Amino acid sequence: MTTITTDFVSKMDRVSRLNLINSVTGFKPANLIGTKSTSGQSNCAIISSVIHLGSDPGLIGFVMRPLTVPRHTMRNILETSSYTINHINADIAERAHWTSADFDGHESEFDMCNLEEIYRDDFFAPFVGQSNIALGMTLVETIDIKVNGTVLVIGKIEMVHMKEDYRTSTGCLDLVKAGTIAISGLDTYHTTDILASFPYARVNDLPVF
Amino acid sequence: MTTITTDFVSKMDRVSRLNLINSVTGFKPANLIGTKSTSGQSNCAIISSVIHLGSDPGLIGFVMRPLTVPRHTMRNILETSSYTINHINADIAERAHWTSADFDGHESEFDMCNLEEIYRDDFFAPFVGQSNIALGMTLVETIDIKVNGTVLVIGKIEMVHMKEDYRTSTGCLDLVKAGTIAISGLDTYHTTDILASFPYARVNDLPVF
Repeated sequence: MTTITTDFVSKMDRVSRLNLINSVTGFKPANLIGTKSTSGQSNCAIISSVIHLGSDPGLIGFVMRPLTVPRHTMRNILETSSYTINHINADIAERAHWTSADFDGHESEFDMCNLEEIYRDDFFAPFVGQSNIALGMTLVETIDIKVNGTVLVIGKIEMVHMKEDYRTSTGCLDLVKAGTIAISGLDTYHTTDILASFPYARVNDLPVF
Repeated sequence: MTTITTDFVSKMDRVSRLNLINSVTGFKPANLIGTKSTSGQSNCAIISSVIHLGSDPGLIGFVMRPLTVPRHTMRNILETSSYTINHINADIAERAHWTSADFDGHESEFDMCNLEEIYRDDFFAPFVGQSNIALGMTLVETIDIKVNGTVLVIGKIEMVHMKEDYRTSTGCLDLVKAGTIAISGLDTYHTTDILASFPYARVNDLPVF
């Protein structure tokens, strides 16, 4: 085993540091955030920081870098309180990746990256048509993370769109069947297979390891 | 496509709701948090909510439910400011899952689940010996998420332990080579394969989709 200390990391070139530190948390969920401004300009941004916060009510967070790429996303969410979270699958992985390009503010990533902008059930924010699992979200609050200026955006799940056969007998979603992919680092996309499922862990049922 | 609304979700039985809402964010990183109390009692807890917050300095967050399983983890982190984040691989997936059982406070999950408790470089908190990538962390701050009583625990990466050959030519970690796995829902573990890597997205290089 090699040990890399924080002093060593701070002396790395910027790209190596970004690549290392963006890899060390493990696999990340691959999602597109869909938004629309009050003037009707849509926006679509890849984000790897979506996180489960609670189940009743269903609350989800994601981390926004205030001064970097998805600034239109943040502005639209604050203006309209409405956004969508759309799972990325292999068919749209490359298009999803390219939403991170710094397009002019008058161009929609839906158009530039050939992602289908669709509207469902009178929900304000646009969904990604090619996504097999998608959530309609309403903003609950934003929390400033002062130590580095990032923002935790917290929203409530209003609706889940998916094919019914993705739901397993226990109510989970089969993400492999849905084609959902994962991200490592800043640029690498992964398909997955099921390794195992384990029962709810009760002390009295503890296996002999 | 089927639409499940929040009203429908709130009327689901508890297990179905937990399984659905814990699945909808996509794949989650699979990590074990290692801690030790000031009196020397070690603790090891599986956590699927580790999130990248920043690269310079390297900052990582995870979400803690204050009243549920990993309460010893939280107490130890607040007492000692020291913890480790250890990637879960296929060899220890089942043992890692069972750390979520509600053991007596005087039993260490390292012992109960046959996870190797090791100490490195005079770092206070214990590492998981079978983990191929592990981080030594120092607490920076905790942020209360008032809407549902969860806590975002933010820490600084002090050191990264890994095999040198996991680092790619660009400085990323090859998580497939390291055997790191991903989680979906509350109980399902996934191996991954590389689908693709894409270049840094510059507008002028946009492919024709």
